[in-house]
Amino acid sequence: MEIVRRIRSGNIRAAARLLRDIDDRIPSAHDALRELYPYTGKAHVVGITGSPGVGKSTLVDGLTVRFRKDGLTVGILAIDPTSPFTGGAILGDRIRMQRHFPDDGVFIRSLATRGQFGGLTRSTNDMISVLDAMGKDVILVETVGVGQDEVEIVNSAHTTVLVTVPGLGDDVQALKSGILEIGNILVVNKADREGAEKTASQLRGLVDMRKIGGNGDGWNPVIVKTDAHRGMGMEELYSAICGHRDFLLRSGREEWNEMARQRAKRQLMEALREEAVKAILNRMEDRGKPLDALLDEVVERRTDPYSLASEIVSEKLCNGR
Amino acid sequence: MEIVRRIRSGNIRAAARLLRDIDDRIPSAHDALRELYPYTGKAHVVGITGSPGVGKSTLVDGLTVRFRKDGLTVGILAIDPTSPFTGGAILGDRIRMQRHFPDDGVFIRSLATRGQFGGLTRSTNDMISVLDAMGKDVILVETVGVGQDEVEIVNSAHTTVLVTVPGLGDDVQALKSGILEIGNILVVNKADREGAEKTASQLRGLVDMRKIGGNGDGWNPVIVKTDAHRGMGMEELYSAICGHRDFLLRSGREEWNEMARQRAKRQLMEALREEAVKAILNRMEDRGKPLDALLDEVVERRTDPYSLASEIVSEKLCNGR
Repeated sequence: MEIVRRIRSGNIRAAARLLRDIDDRIPSAHDALRELYPYTGKAHVVGITGSPGVGKSTLVDGLTVRFRKDGLTVGILAIDPTSPFTGGAILGDRIRMQRHFPDDGVFIRSLATRGQFGGLTRSTNDMISVLDAMGKDVILVETVGVGQDEVEIVNSAHTTVLVTVPGLGDDVQALKSGILEIGNILVVNKADREGAEKTASQLRGLVDMRKIGGNGDGWNPVIVKTDAHRGMGMEELYSAICGHRDFLLRSGREEWNEMARQRAKRQLMEALREEAVKAILNRMEDRGKPLDALLDEVVERRTDPYSLASEIVSEKLCNGR
Repeated sequence: MEIVRRIRSGNIRAAARLLRDIDDRIPSAHDALRELYPYTGKAHVVGITGSPGVGKSTLVDGLTVRFRKDGLTVGILAIDPTSPFTGGAILGDRIRMQRHFPDDGVFIRSLATRGQFGGLTRSTNDMISVLDAMGKDVILVETVGVGQDEVEIVNSAHTTVLVTVPGLGDDVQALKSGILEIGNILVVNKADREGAEKTASQLRGLVDMRKIGGNGDGWNPVIVKTDAHRGMGMEELYSAICGHRDFLLRSGREEWNEMARQRAKRQLMEALREEAVKAILNRMEDRGKPLDALLDEVVERRTDPYSLASEIVSEKLCNGR
């Protein structure tokens, strides 16, 4: 497949087109993804997540420069809850592209969240695969928010960096945020602000609590204070990220391989969900019994969504119950 | 079914138990949901969403008091990305329960997000159904963040209140947040803070942009400045919410009914996804070919998740392609 060959040779235009097709959910994209998959699994995927306004983009840009200094190629996926209406993602790309232009070692792409259920997670994993197959050494995935989908996304990362800032109840919210559980590195950005040390020590307290609770992967989350705009703490953050990668790769790559397995399982489950529903809906269409026709029964409370779903599924599956 | 009868009679203990079963994904909960569904569809579902720390809980509590003043019963679902580890959701319930205790007209429950893919949306819709069947006149759904799941959740609401605060780039982030598209009422909370008017006018600008862009549901988002702690602006917010409900119910309830249809469709699609995958996985188990056994082929790149998913699905569906 021509596009596959070009993407593997690092062709930015080809990769950009495939990423757009994935984002627009164009079916042909799946064929390309199938052929690219064998060439994936090499990159170090780093998730950078946190609430809006904590300075993730600046951190990502700073890290990119640092990775380049070591001669590592970098792919960046900025997951951006931008609506088609505001169109900010594309704009964001243009602005950020320029900063690293014409460095071919850096490829950045923003992904606007689609309204589709769970679409974000699926698309993100697919896009990570594309950058991976492109041969990027490091893939930085920047995600906004503390929602379920963000948790799913960082689950796809080898290393997760949770970014917060002093104040605005964010430190308290961090406590409430399940995402803290999966942060391998905890960053207090805008550390020039008042309360930075307080936030850092609160995080230290949480890390100690977790040790007692025993999340037991043998890694103790590192806390780093940064001021991304001034470049402060970036070297420490960089070392922490490399340190976690080394941790995963030590002792026969056990952790690394287990993560690869978990990620493959998630991708398979997501593909399975999508394929199963697609196949069922197609068959309903073919039989002249589209979903919308049955919907009225639910709206008028003659049945309920759960019973109807079971009926449809068991009818479509061989010797279904 | 005993639990169904008790929930319909407004029994808080029975409702709390079912909600817990839903949250814990205990299968028997589905039977109760099936029986409750015919009694749903009456409540006015109001989504209250925004970034962490903007003061959603305080607004929800204030609105609850106001609705009670009109003799309306209120159900509250606080969607809280709390991990099982921190256990904050239950704590939050206890603290907040006390405030309205012993008012039987108010039922509040926090829902901790589960790691399961898309689990949050499904659980939330189910929980809304329970409170609806309980006979609550108004259901307030409080969600944190601007992630995909939050968008899905507010899609289940008749009226969506988007909460922001002055500063911390939140006003800029609002532009980038697709969720703004679906905010029927835009609240600038903590309006005593500097920059409140600036944020409000930025939102006004966005609303005007949207009018030009034409989101065309005939409703022009209302912008309200509040200071929930001092109770400032709560009456305006309350009127805006009632105003939007009246808008939906005017001219033969067209908008209201269309929303009911859309929500039923989402519930059906979610149930379909869940049932389809569950049935397929069960059949694989029965055939002694569990998913994990096939997973190695993906991990070792002998196949890819997409091809394997298609194979599995077409094999499980009658005369699959």
